[in-house]
Amino acid sequence: MQTRSEETRGRIVQSALKLFADQGYDATGVAEICKSSGVSKGAFYHHFPSKQAVFLVLLQEWLQSLDKELGRAMSASSNVPEGLLAMASEMQGVFAAADGRLSLFLEFWQQARRDPAVWKELIAPYRRYRDYFAQIVQTGIDEGSLRPVDAQAAGQALVALAVGIVVQGVLDPGGAQWDVVTRDALQLLITGLSSGR
Amino acid sequence: MQTRSEETRGRIVQSALKLFADQGYDATGVAEICKSSGVSKGAFYHHFPSKQAVFLVLLQEWLQSLDKELGRAMSASSNVPEGLLAMASEMQGVFAAADGRLSLFLEFWQQARRDPAVWKELIAPYRRYRDYFAQIVQTGIDEGSLRPVDAQAAGQALVALAVGIVVQGVLDPGGAQWDVVTRDALQLLITGLSSGR
Repeated sequence: MQTRSEETRGRIVQSALKLFADQGYDATGVAEICKSSGVSKGAFYHHFPSKQAVFLVLLQEWLQSLDKELGRAMSASSNVPEGLLAMASEMQGVFAAADGRLSLFLEFWQQARRDPAVWKELIAPYRRYRDYFAQIVQTGIDEGSLRPVDAQAAGQALVALAVGIVVQGVLDPGGAQWDVVTRDALQLLITGLSSGR
Repeated sequence: MQTRSEETRGRIVQSALKLFADQGYDATGVAEICKSSGVSKGAFYHHFPSKQAVFLVLLQEWLQSLDKELGRAMSASSNVPEGLLAMASEMQGVFAAADGRLSLFLEFWQQARRDPAVWKELIAPYRRYRDYFAQIVQTGIDEGSLRPVDAQAAGQALVALAVGIVVQGVLDPGGAQWDVVTRDALQLLITGLSSGR
């Protein structure tokens, strides 16, 4: 069961998420987060030292749920190409999550470009994803499902594709069926990675 | 020869570019652009109705130079795979342009998400790029250099890859050799598009 304190903390995070997504990080003040979550300033600062701290919690939570989804997709698959396509299916859930988290994605990058503290928090997991995908490609090469490409370069390509699709999905949600685009684009890349096997 | 009026206009645009890139669009005011370009407010408003108008000029200029580079790369190549790789080489120039234009890229998307006027200006050329790349893929299919894939989906994949690499290059300029990443990722996709030919 959630304690009252946990419940307050969760309410702050949810309100901040909605405000950041709707009007942007810069335009949102602590006072507004307090008002919208029905929490006193004292209670806010009991839980978080700053607005940025809430922002970083949102980033961490987003990355953790992404990690879980990707790990689940890969472990349920019998080889790497299958696992990558299962990950693409998981992206459907990411796009369907209408809680504004996806639109925070651009905000994360934008803030990271300006603020070294955010940059440090964002760049570590992001570089980790690149290594993670490079490792997956290496596994595919080792198991014989992918041809012996440069695993680091292929990992980069996979991350670039994912980032590009998410950014487009945020800007132009109605412009394409993004889950279909994800699957088709990944399928093309997998064909490129496995051709000649 | 540039008239004095053109010279003033150019100075405003250059100052705005630098300020937007350094500190962001929201944090930059018309007064600051005037100060930094040594132009009076009267002269500013003679050339532009608003700060946003300068922003949209920067967007248009960026897209025009991109169009020119992509068109040149394709017309100098003898088939589609070669043309796509030539385009990737042109990206080197895009990444090397240290005038802050690249870091404005994220700002464009961010503003577009909030402001329908910017969205309209950004979405039209962006959708045009998707069609442009779909057409290129179709040309490749017709000339026999690519296999008969879904041209629209492949165009989407190419644009996603480009967007993803540019976004990463902005955030993490030192994190990879982005020109090499671009070429390698594209090469993988081209192999996926041409395998079995």
